[in-house]
Amino acid sequence: MHSDRLADLLAPWLVGGRAYAGVAAGIRGLALDGRLSVGARVPSERQLAAALGVSRTTVTAAYDVLRSEGYLASAAGAGSRVTLPSSAPVRPDADPGEPTVVRDLTVAASPAPAQLLDAVAAATADLRPLLAGHGLHPYGLPALRTAVAAHLSGRGLPTEPEQVLVTNGALAAWDLLLRTVTRPGQRALVEQPTYPAALDAVAANHLRPVALPVGVEGWELPVAAAHVALVTPDGQNPTGLLADDAQRRALLAALDVPVVAADETFAELVLDGARPTPLAALDRRVVTLGSMSKAYWSGLRVGWVRADPSLLARLAQVRGTVDLSSPVLEQLVAVRLLAVADEVLADRVAWLTAARDALLAALAARLPDWRAVRPRAGSMLWVLLPGQSSTRLAAHALDLGLRVTPGPRFTVDGTADRWLRLPLSVPPELADEVAAVLQAAWERTVAGTDSRRIPSRWTA
Amino acid sequence: MHSDRLADLLAPWLVGGRAYAGVAAGIRGLALDGRLSVGARVPSERQLAAALGVSRTTVTAAYDVLRSEGYLASAAGAGSRVTLPSSAPVRPDADPGEPTVVRDLTVAASPAPAQLLDAVAAATADLRPLLAGHGLHPYGLPALRTAVAAHLSGRGLPTEPEQVLVTNGALAAWDLLLRTVTRPGQRALVEQPTYPAALDAVAANHLRPVALPVGVEGWELPVAAAHVALVTPDGQNPTGLLADDAQRRALLAALDVPVVAADETFAELVLDGARPTPLAALDRRVVTLGSMSKAYWSGLRVGWVRADPSLLARLAQVRGTVDLSSPVLEQLVAVRLLAVADEVLADRVAWLTAARDALLAALAARLPDWRAVRPRAGSMLWVLLPGQSSTRLAAHALDLGLRVTPGPRFTVDGTADRWLRLPLSVPPELADEVAAVLQAAWERTVAGTDSRRIPSRWTA
Repeated sequence: MHSDRLADLLAPWLVGGRAYAGVAAGIRGLALDGRLSVGARVPSERQLAAALGVSRTTVTAAYDVLRSEGYLASAAGAGSRVTLPSSAPVRPDADPGEPTVVRDLTVAASPAPAQLLDAVAAATADLRPLLAGHGLHPYGLPALRTAVAAHLSGRGLPTEPEQVLVTNGALAAWDLLLRTVTRPGQRALVEQPTYPAALDAVAANHLRPVALPVGVEGWELPVAAAHVALVTPDGQNPTGLLADDAQRRALLAALDVPVVAADETFAELVLDGARPTPLAALDRRVVTLGSMSKAYWSGLRVGWVRADPSLLARLAQVRGTVDLSSPVLEQLVAVRLLAVADEVLADRVAWLTAARDALLAALAARLPDWRAVRPRAGSMLWVLLPGQSSTRLAAHALDLGLRVTPGPRFTVDGTADRWLRLPLSVPPELADEVAAVLQAAWERTVAGTDSRRIPSRWTA
Repeated sequence: MHSDRLADLLAPWLVGGRAYAGVAAGIRGLALDGRLSVGARVPSERQLAAALGVSRTTVTAAYDVLRSEGYLASAAGAGSRVTLPSSAPVRPDADPGEPTVVRDLTVAASPAPAQLLDAVAAATADLRPLLAGHGLHPYGLPALRTAVAAHLSGRGLPTEPEQVLVTNGALAAWDLLLRTVTRPGQRALVEQPTYPAALDAVAANHLRPVALPVGVEGWELPVAAAHVALVTPDGQNPTGLLADDAQRRALLAALDVPVVAADETFAELVLDGARPTPLAALDRRVVTLGSMSKAYWSGLRVGWVRADPSLLARLAQVRGTVDLSSPVLEQLVAVRLLAVADEVLADRVAWLTAARDALLAALAARLPDWRAVRPRAGSMLWVLLPGQSSTRLAAHALDLGLRVTPGPRFTVDGTADRWLRLPLSVPPELADEVAAVLQAAWERTVAGTDSRRIPSRWTA
């Protein structure tokens, strides 16, 4: 697209705010509404800067943002072309004067920690002596198994490196466990609500999901028997509950399940109070799943399973049917980040606490009838909508540029349509802006103006 | 495992030597090469003794040895199950004067290319602008999708970035495809022989494997109908065959299969002659699987699927049930390595060609009766042993410090016991040393002497 034409199209976005953000928002919006087609080449930074009458630095910053978001792709010598991230909203066709934020709130999307680049530099040096080897370590690099064992031991769960298998995240660990210990048709007990990918993995393994209800007060007992279970007492996703030791013991006593997976993805993100006893320290049936993805960065795909060595050997063998091994460099970065975990986690907890408090305050101000479960751990907020469908709300929000996941996505049976999950990834200074979009979507929902077609590409 | 089936598998070990040592060596070998899975229950001593026609004392002694070595674990009242020793191998206890090489020839274990550290440094710089994002890219980083598309296009398969999904390797891509397009009980056509992990993935997805025989001259047609197929015309693993265009067309015409996966892991490692037409350029049913793991480094866990965008969207959705996304830094390293692919691949092909020629010459000198299929592509060598069991040879080689994978591991039905796979990862200067160990193992196999104690800590 010619620079002058693009400059004309960008004009509406360049009112107020920082110029680079306006340029980025404009190109993003044009890509999303189809006026800039996927694959179209955008002008060079110099050309666009001239056409807009801004500095080249402004356009460079805008293109960097767009590349990081997946809206631009650059190939050496071939300029930059428009792409679409797969999670992009369909089209945020807000009316003039309405909020124009384009924001994906279906994932808790934290930026990388400040310590990451130092960890990468150190890991690159650590990589050098490993280059002569073949790079396949079915259980994980010894250095990472040792670091994870020390990390878990330090959190009150004595662990030997021989009990640790490195995976590509907690979800990969859950899927691997299901592959290893179940057969099609068996029953898998999952919390209700739980995170959508956990349910998807149950379905992909041809298991029958059985709900373990979680209310605002906690896990509702007794529960049905099953072959395997997944629980998240350390920052329940999406409710943000943190089980105390009494709740843990009651839950374990109620579980008529031979293999219990405890997903501790959020265990290091306790926002209020101290961390209770790790579930695996209370019961030998418990297999602990962990991940770097929420407490550190989702762009790191490193997680682990802690299990007794005989189960671990079976998991390692099944891992050989999936993807053999985790990347070496990635594991070395994880070792270095775990070495500065206290620092990273203190930053994360402070950030999430501020985000939580700002979002709760903004919702209370604009949507006083909504009821949120105040999360004690994790990076999610679970909100009850008074008497309306979150599916309809989500469709209206999408029209307004905000992508959110409605409650039914978190349940075995498609219930919970009065609930909505929001992530604690909204910067505090944007909390009111997000709340304003939700308020506008809510007003449309309540007014029953639901004649809009629900976008066909809705998949969240 | 049923006692009669285990007795059949153990037969090759029971020639000569003490019977209990043969039973122990057999179970150890079957556990190490994966035919007995970890966690599998072995028959009771009484049952196995009856099936083998030996005394119960013999089986008791064998199980005692295996328990002491860590290959069997027994729980009171629950029988014995296969395990693998968790401690790392050190070295087998060869007698003085015998070959002392300790070498794992079950994987083609190349060191990293010289260009890797530069690629990591460049990727670290590329990472900086992505740190503000959440790091999840279900289809892969746009930069890598673009680079893979350009790479495939340059090899004669016109590809758009929108046709590319990044995975954690070709095996992960095959597993993902099976998850996406099959249901338990359906038929999956696989080459016979094929690589063991491909068969394991078929089993893990609860599919019925159907053999597509591959002889020394090529793919044996016609073949049975199936729901999905995996073929490797670009460096068949383990035979090293490279299908010419006529063979490709004949194979495609014979395939009564709606989805055909072509694993191109070895496609860039053509050792003799030019590369034929990519299979996907000949037939719209073909889904191309690729990987950095053999042509670049196995410590990189990056691969891809090329498919039409509608299938790709389904694959991406299923990917969300497995591990969400590939690591960002790893993908950036892949982009940088693909940019210098010509240089990396020229080094690799030269190295493999030298390794192949040295190994073929050493085998011809020391074992002139063996018949190797001269590989035209890839990093494997498929060898026919005249009239003896490769399973027994592998057990003797293990005694001498060399771990190799016997032929039955590559077949659907446990045939091919006269075949052996060797990798082209033996440095040329060590080829004669490896051939000498194989010669010694061969002499023991032919002599039927099986009296050596097998080293207790050997697991590599």
